[in-house]
Amino acid sequence: MKVTVLAGGVGGARFLLGVREYVSSVSTAESDIETVPASEPSSASIPARKPARIPTSDDVADANETSTRVPESRASQPTAIVNVGDDTWMHDLRLCPDLDSCMYTLGGGIDEHRGWGRQDETWSLKAELAAYGAKPDWFGLGDRDTATHLIRSQMLRAGYRLSDITEALSKRWSPGVRLLPVTDDRSETYVVVTHPTDGDKQAIHFQEWWVRYRAQIETHDFVHIGADEAAPAPGVLDSIRDADIVLIAPSNPIVSIAPILAIPGVRGALRTTNAPVVGISPIIGNAPLRGMADVCLRVAGSEVSSQGVAEYYGARESTGILDGWLSHPGDTVSVPGIAALETPIMMTNPSITAEMVASACKLVGVQP
Amino acid sequence: MKVTVLAGGVGGARFLLGVREYVSSVSTAESDIETVPASEPSSASIPARKPARIPTSDDVADANETSTRVPESRASQPTAIVNVGDDTWMHDLRLCPDLDSCMYTLGGGIDEHRGWGRQDETWSLKAELAAYGAKPDWFGLGDRDTATHLIRSQMLRAGYRLSDITEALSKRWSPGVRLLPVTDDRSETYVVVTHPTDGDKQAIHFQEWWVRYRAQIETHDFVHIGADEAAPAPGVLDSIRDADIVLIAPSNPIVSIAPILAIPGVRGALRTTNAPVVGISPIIGNAPLRGMADVCLRVAGSEVSSQGVAEYYGARESTGILDGWLSHPGDTVSVPGIAALETPIMMTNPSITAEMVASACKLVGVQP
Repeated sequence: MKVTVLAGGVGGARFLLGVREYVSSVSTAESDIETVPASEPSSASIPARKPARIPTSDDVADANETSTRVPESRASQPTAIVNVGDDTWMHDLRLCPDLDSCMYTLGGGIDEHRGWGRQDETWSLKAELAAYGAKPDWFGLGDRDTATHLIRSQMLRAGYRLSDITEALSKRWSPGVRLLPVTDDRSETYVVVTHPTDGDKQAIHFQEWWVRYRAQIETHDFVHIGADEAAPAPGVLDSIRDADIVLIAPSNPIVSIAPILAIPGVRGALRTTNAPVVGISPIIGNAPLRGMADVCLRVAGSEVSSQGVAEYYGARESTGILDGWLSHPGDTVSVPGIAALETPIMMTNPSITAEMVASACKLVGVQP
Repeated sequence: MKVTVLAGGVGGARFLLGVREYVSSVSTAESDIETVPASEPSSASIPARKPARIPTSDDVADANETSTRVPESRASQPTAIVNVGDDTWMHDLRLCPDLDSCMYTLGGGIDEHRGWGRQDETWSLKAELAAYGAKPDWFGLGDRDTATHLIRSQMLRAGYRLSDITEALSKRWSPGVRLLPVTDDRSETYVVVTHPTDGDKQAIHFQEWWVRYRAQIETHDFVHIGADEAAPAPGVLDSIRDADIVLIAPSNPIVSIAPILAIPGVRGALRTTNAPVVGISPIIGNAPLRGMADVCLRVAGSEVSSQGVAEYYGARESTGILDGWLSHPGDTVSVPGIAALETPIMMTNPSITAEMVASACKLVGVQP
């Protein structure tokens, strides 16, 4: 069964735990051969030195040779198309918060309490950077996490694509989900704010808005810098086209899902795929499951409710992307063209989340 | 009093502690105005973002503005010309082991037990890189230390010179010694070895030879890759020319001092300066004070003794660089043209090391 998920952030990562469990259970039921690979430790085959030339696709194929050895398990792996709008360069390190949250969560390396970054994290590097007065100083750069950033940055500077790098890094974590950055190009979310220090209206990077200012400054708009010239990463459009079902994770619609939809071709693929597209509400009542989706929705002019988000995405039979929508019991949603279902959507554990996925499939008549 | 020191490694860093103490004591005696600045915390004014253009000297002057505020204390600071032959790129980080050893030792941040790296170090990043299978995996990349590498690498990629970066980093540490890399250009020590895995004769980076193989493989030669096209960093030749005395620290002659002498112009400056040049033996009896100078000297065809090292450097009145030489009591040295003195040269603490410096000055008639 081919499941493709649009995901970002903590909500997206936790949702993928349930998707993996669901797909694994139905794949095991339908075939003894197609199993999700066990989480065995494996090295990432990171190149030690920069190649003297820009690597070709052959080099990348060599570097990622093990990926071609497990085609049968690939078939039963869900695909996640992951937001890269949060990505940024900081201290010459390329940070990909959403890809890392997905990778760490699925690989068992996430700090469960914080919801981001590595468990058993230490913070020596951050303390030292602060002692040097290095800016920015408001970002939580953990020592363990930095290894991921360092390898990624080195490979990017060596000419590898983010999608290839993500695959290489994932070998260590065996996430059981194919993690695809929505694009290999730079497309970053900037936030138009009234700057708190000088009162000027200016665009700051999403990370600065989110981490430094906790979204608590006057905010006017979100823009996707670079999106118009970005191309979908290899596999992104195919995974939407060839899916049995496409799911929109209960991620922040404005800053996690919208930056995915902003990449040319993605929205069109969602509107034309034969697979039904089902979203899960990130809002219960009038509050987000986590994070600051309420703030973001208000800025975007949407109502902070499951109804508001469903309207924001819209129905495929109109100009939107949804065929179905899951909201929490009591959150009645009515949008023409969208099949709505009220069902528990608190992602308490992967099994409960897997039941949400089962409900989504059932809602639009997709058989496992 | 103007003292310039050629230094590298742990021996060089410890020697500088004594030089600083000596210069501070004689400066305080001769003037109440010229004092070594107190070790007050200060930020390094590290630029947060890459400049859109290559920075000019004006930018650097701005970035380093505080350095122009203390010219009177500068005058009493010794200058250290530091080896960069050990420097290398690793995981896209520029490592400058000797500069860092000097900076951390003088700034009170060194791990005294190891003799290199930061005190209270943690090793999360190294463990994570190993878990990813990232190569090389034999280098001790500490979390705290990595902050220094990260800032330096970022500034190098932004176009700053190593000498400017060293000055910026030093602001945090207030080393009380002007630390100058001998060159801003890339000049690295490679070691010609019979490779242990394939038996081929090949050149490996000094760090690999030193750290990975502990110098315990068949070794043929040391070469200074890039030295012939390197230029002395700003201030290097001036500090030799304008010194009252030039000291050669008891560093490894072959892999710490020779790479300094390999930079075009340095040897000539030492041979033509009006200042006397006095070296301190890194060998006591037939053993190095620390490190593996014995192995290096044997490869270079020199006797492992104070006499052997004095001959290796040679007398200025011949074709060498020395006017005076300090060796440990019992290590009698006789080289025509070199004034030799037997005096305790164990650097037990900075005060005892300061006495060595006083002896060196006295030996060649330099008044404080």
